Amino acid sequence: MEKFIYNRLKELKDSDIVSFHMPGHKYGRVFDELGYGDILKELYTLDTTEIIGTDNLHNPKDVILKSQENVRRILFPEYDDVEVRFLINGSSCGIEASIISACRPGDKIIINRACHQSAYNGCILANAHPIFVNERVDKKNNIFLGAEIEEYLEKIDENKDAKAIFITRPTYHGMSFRISEIIEKAHKNGMIVIVDEAHGAHFGLNDKFPHSAIEYGADIAIQSVHKSLPSITQTSIMIINDNLIEKNKIIEEKTKEYKVKSLCYEKEKSEKENIKKKPNYSQLVDKSRLDRALSMTESSSPSYMMMMSLEIAFDIYEKHGKKLMDELLNNIYIFRKNVKSYDIFNTTDPTKIFINTINNGINGYDFAKVLRYRYNIQVELANYSGVLMLCTIGNKKKDFDLMLEALNEISEKKLFGLNLEFFDDIDDARKKKKNDDIKRMTTSKQINLEFPCINPEIKIHPNEAFNMETESVAIEKALGKISGEFVIPYPPGVCLVAPGEIIEKEIIDFIISASKMDVDINGMESSEFTEIKIIKE
Amino acid sequence: MEKFIYNRLKELKDSDIVSFHMPGHKYGRVFDELGYGDILKELYTLDTTEIIGTDNLHNPKDVILKSQENVRRILFPEYDDVEVRFLINGSSCGIEASIISACRPGDKIIINRACHQSAYNGCILANAHPIFVNERVDKKNNIFLGAEIEEYLEKIDENKDAKAIFITRPTYHGMSFRISEIIEKAHKNGMIVIVDEAHGAHFGLNDKFPHSAIEYGADIAIQSVHKSLPSITQTSIMIINDNLIEKNKIIEEKTKEYKVKSLCYEKEKSEKENIKKKPNYSQLVDKSRLDRALSMTESSSPSYMMMMSLEIAFDIYEKHGKKLMDELLNNIYIFRKNVKSYDIFNTTDPTKIFINTINNGINGYDFAKVLRYRYNIQVELANYSGVLMLCTIGNKKKDFDLMLEALNEISEKKLFGLNLEFFDDIDDARKKKKNDDIKRMTTSKQINLEFPCINPEIKIHPNEAFNMETESVAIEKALGKISGEFVIPYPPGVCLVAPGEIIEKEIIDFIISASKMDVDINGMESSEFTEIKIIKE
Repeated sequence: MEKFIYNRLKELKDSDIVSFHMPGHKYGRVFDELGYGDILKELYTLDTTEIIGTDNLHNPKDVILKSQENVRRILFPEYDDVEVRFLINGSSCGIEASIISACRPGDKIIINRACHQSAYNGCILANAHPIFVNERVDKKNNIFLGAEIEEYLEKIDENKDAKAIFITRPTYHGMSFRISEIIEKAHKNGMIVIVDEAHGAHFGLNDKFPHSAIEYGADIAIQSVHKSLPSITQTSIMIINDNLIEKNKIIEEKTKEYKVKSLCYEKEKSEKENIKKKPNYSQLVDKSRLDRALSMTESSSPSYMMMMSLEIAFDIYEKHGKKLMDELLNNIYIFRKNVKSYDIFNTTDPTKIFINTINNGINGYDFAKVLRYRYNIQVELANYSGVLMLCTIGNKKKDFDLMLEALNEISEKKLFGLNLEFFDDIDDARKKKKNDDIKRMTTSKQINLEFPCINPEIKIHPNEAFNMETESVAIEKALGKISGEFVIPYPPGVCLVAPGEIIEKEIIDFIISASKMDVDINGMESSEFTEIKIIKE
Repeated sequence: MEKFIYNRLKELKDSDIVSFHMPGHKYGRVFDELGYGDILKELYTLDTTEIIGTDNLHNPKDVILKSQENVRRILFPEYDDVEVRFLINGSSCGIEASIISACRPGDKIIINRACHQSAYNGCILANAHPIFVNERVDKKNNIFLGAEIEEYLEKIDENKDAKAIFITRPTYHGMSFRISEIIEKAHKNGMIVIVDEAHGAHFGLNDKFPHSAIEYGADIAIQSVHKSLPSITQTSIMIINDNLIEKNKIIEEKTKEYKVKSLCYEKEKSEKENIKKKPNYSQLVDKSRLDRALSMTESSSPSYMMMMSLEIAFDIYEKHGKKLMDELLNNIYIFRKNVKSYDIFNTTDPTKIFINTINNGINGYDFAKVLRYRYNIQVELANYSGVLMLCTIGNKKKDFDLMLEALNEISEKKLFGLNLEFFDDIDDARKKKKNDDIKRMTTSKQINLEFPCINPEIKIHPNEAFNMETESVAIEKALGKISGEFVIPYPPGVCLVAPGEIIEKEIIDFIISASKMDVDINGMESSEFTEIKIIKE
C-alpha cells in the first residue's frame, strides 16, 4: 500500500527542515551527532514484549525498575524517596492516572483553567468535579502566564474539601511562577498536588531554569521527555514524591532564589523564605492506586522501543546535557541580541522564545506559514500575536542563524509570498490552498483575535455532561446554552468551553472570528465551526 | 546512565533467540528479509509531531486519514462504510474507548469472563455494570475455548436493557466460534457489539482462518497488529462498522462455511445459514462519541513511528502476506506432522500451536524454562499443561526445525537441566534462582493447577469497588469476603476475581497452589501472594 505518512515525513526530513518544535531530538540530529544513531537504527530489531528477562512495565522488578531508578538518581540525586515511572502513552496518560487516583467520584479538584485537555479527560474518567482557577494572560502577546497564585490560595480556602490540586507549571509558553505557598496550603488541607510539568523536563540542565515542583514538595509531576529532551514522541515520565518529610529538609538547604520577570508577579518573593516555614507532612499519594490507574491509561503491551528511547534520552542528559544546554543558552543569547526589529516576550524559560510579529504588521498564523513555506522553518506554535520557538539541545547555531536571516528578510523586504516549489508532489487541491494562503498573506489580517480568558459557569459536571444527549445549533444561537462539546482552539490547545458549561458571548465571538483566520479548533464536530453541540433540553 | 533495558534486549537479540512469541515481526527479521530494514533504521529521524503537513491522529484529514483508508481497503475491500483507526496505545486503548463510548454510567454490558484486563478497566472508567458470560475451558490443556454461545444468548434475553456486548474472539489460545447468532440477537435488542480481535489481525491472509467478526456484522473490532502481523509493539487498529445494511447484503454473498473442531461446539452449523435470516439494522455506533473516547485513552502526542510501523505492516500484508502465510502454514503442517511424542491441541487458528507437556511428565512452566535456557527458544505462554507457540509470517522453517529438535531431545533424553552459561553477565541472585529452577526442573511438579473457571458473585460494581477503601487479610482468611483487588494469573492473563466480587474457595485454593509454582499473579499487592486486599467493612 502507499505509505502516505512515511512518504510525507520522509519528504519533510529530506527537505532539511529547521525545527523549532517538538520532539526535542529534532529529526534525530542530536542522536546522530552524539553517536547514538547506531543504537537507534537497531531499535526495531530489539522491540519485544514481556518474556523471561525483559521485565514488566506494570509491575517492574528487574531492568525497567533499575532504569527508572537510574533516571531518578540523575534528576533528583538527593531524593531517595522519589520514584520515577516511564510513561509510554505520553504525559496525557500520567495526568489522567494522577487525577483518577487522587479523586473518587464526586471529589473536587482545583485546576488551572488553561490546563491540558488530558486534565479535563481525567475529570471525566474519574467523575471528579473541577474548580477552575483563572488564567492570567498577557494580552499583547496572547501568552498564558499561569494561574494566579492568590486565586489558587482563595480556591483552597473556599474548597477545603477538595482532594487534589492541579497546577500547570511551566505553561506551554514557558512561564513559571512561585508554587511553594500553593503546595503548602494544599498539603495543610490534605490535598494531593499534581503538577503538569510537561514543558519542564529540561529544568535540571541549568541553574537559569526554575526548579521542578517536586523540589517544592509537589506529590506528583509529569514531564514530557519528548518535548524538551531527546526522546521519541509519546515518551514521558511521572515523578512521585514519596517522602515529604525528608524532602522538606533537603529543600531548605538547596532551594535557591529565582525571580519571574513578568507583569503579573510583581509581588514575587524568594521561594526559599516560604519553604522554611513549611511543616513536615505525611505521605499523601496512594501509590498502589496510582499504579492501578496507570495500568488503565497505558497499554498492556507497552513498547520497549519507547522505554529504550527514555534510557537514551537520560544517558544524553547525564553525559552531555549540561554542556549542550550551555551551548544552547549561549546561542539563544546571541540570537536574541541580534533580533532587532521584533519584540521578544520574556519567558521564565529562556528556551521558549516568543516573537511578536503583529507589531510588525503580520499576524502569527501568517508569519508561521511564511517561515515554513519560504524558509523551511517550522515553529512550535503561532497565535494571532506571534510565533513561539521551542528550542532544545537538538538545535544548533545554524538553526538560529537561519531563523535570524528569515526574520530580517521578512522584516526588511516585507516578503509574505510562499514558495510553491517546496513540495514536488504537490497536488492541485493543496496548490490551490497555498495560493489562497498567499493572497491572504499579502494582506495579513489584523482583526485582533484575543483569546477570551474566561471561566464559564459549570452547569453540569464533566462526566455527567459527557454522558448526556446533545444536539447541534447554529453558533449564533448558542448564547446561554449548555455546551455539549469542547471548544479548544489549537494553538494554544486551551479549552474555551467544556461540555456542561454555559456558552458566553465572548466564546461565540471568538469562534466566529477564529473561523475566519486559520485557527484550528479541536473538539467541535462542525468542520466549518458554524455549529456547536449543546446539551439537549 | 547504564542502559539496563537496552543492554538486556541487545543481549537477547544477539543470542539469536528463536521467537514463538509476539511481536509478529520476530526481532525485525521479517523486515530485514523483505527489504524494509532501511526504512525502519531511519524511523527515528522521521519522528515528529503535528506540524504543517503531518496531519492529526485525533482529527485526521490528510495523510493519516488516507493511510487508515488504505488499510480499510486492504482488509475489507468491499466494505466502503467500514472505517479503520490507528491505535498507538495498543488494543487496550481501543477496548476501553469502545466500552466508554457504548456505555453510560450504570449501563449494563454483557462480557465474556475471560476478557482482557482492559475490558474490566473499560467498565471501571465508564462505570458500566458487567454481566459475565462463563468461559468454556478444555481442562486437559487449560485452554480457553471462548464463551458459550447459548449462554450469550441467554444473557441477552435476561438483560435486554444491556447497551453493549463484548466478545473475545479468537481467544488468546486461538479459539474461534460461531458469532453471527450472538450479533444478530444483540442487534435486535439494540446492543452495540464490540469484538476483541486482538489475536485475529492475520485472519485475512488465508481462507483457513475464521472471518473477522466485522464480516458478521459486529460494530467494532479491535486487532493487535503487533501480535500476529509485523508491526512494532503497542500498535493496533480499531475497525468500525458504519453501515450495517450494506454489510449484510455483502455478507450474504460471500460468507463461507467454516467448522470449529472442538468439544464444545458440536452443534456447529454454517454461519451462512444464520446470516441469511438477518434483517437490516440501522447504525448503532456513535462515532463522534467513540472518537472522543479514543482521545481520552490515547496520548495527545501520538507517535508517528507507531503510525508508520502500521503502514509498513500493511504494506507487507498486501505485497507479501498471502505468500508468506502459505509458507508459514506449510511449515506448521510439516512441524505438526513430525511432532510424535507430544499431544497437540487443535485450535481453530493453526498459527497458535499448543503443545501438551504435562502428559510427558513436565509441567508447562518448567518446560518453557528448559526451552528458553537450554535451547534459546521463547514461547508465547506456558500454563500447567503445556506451552503455546505464537507463529507468524516472521517465523521461518529453521525456527520450527529447532523447536522440533528441542522437543525430541527433551522427550528422548529427559533433559530438564538449564544452561547457566547462557547469560554472560548473570549475577549471583539470578544464578541462585536458576539453580533453584534446575532442582525443581528435575522433578517437574505435577500438582494439577487447573484454572478455576468460575464466575464469582458481583457484590459491588467495578467503578464503585475501585473507589472503596481496602485492607489486607491473609489469603486463608479471605473466604466469602469481597475482593478489593484483581487476581490475574499470568498467563493466561484472565481475571480470577475482580474488585467487588466474592472470594470463593476455588480462588483461594488456586492462589495457594499457584504461589508454589512459577505462576505470576498480576493485580495482587502482596508479592508472595500470601495476602489479598478486601473491601473494608
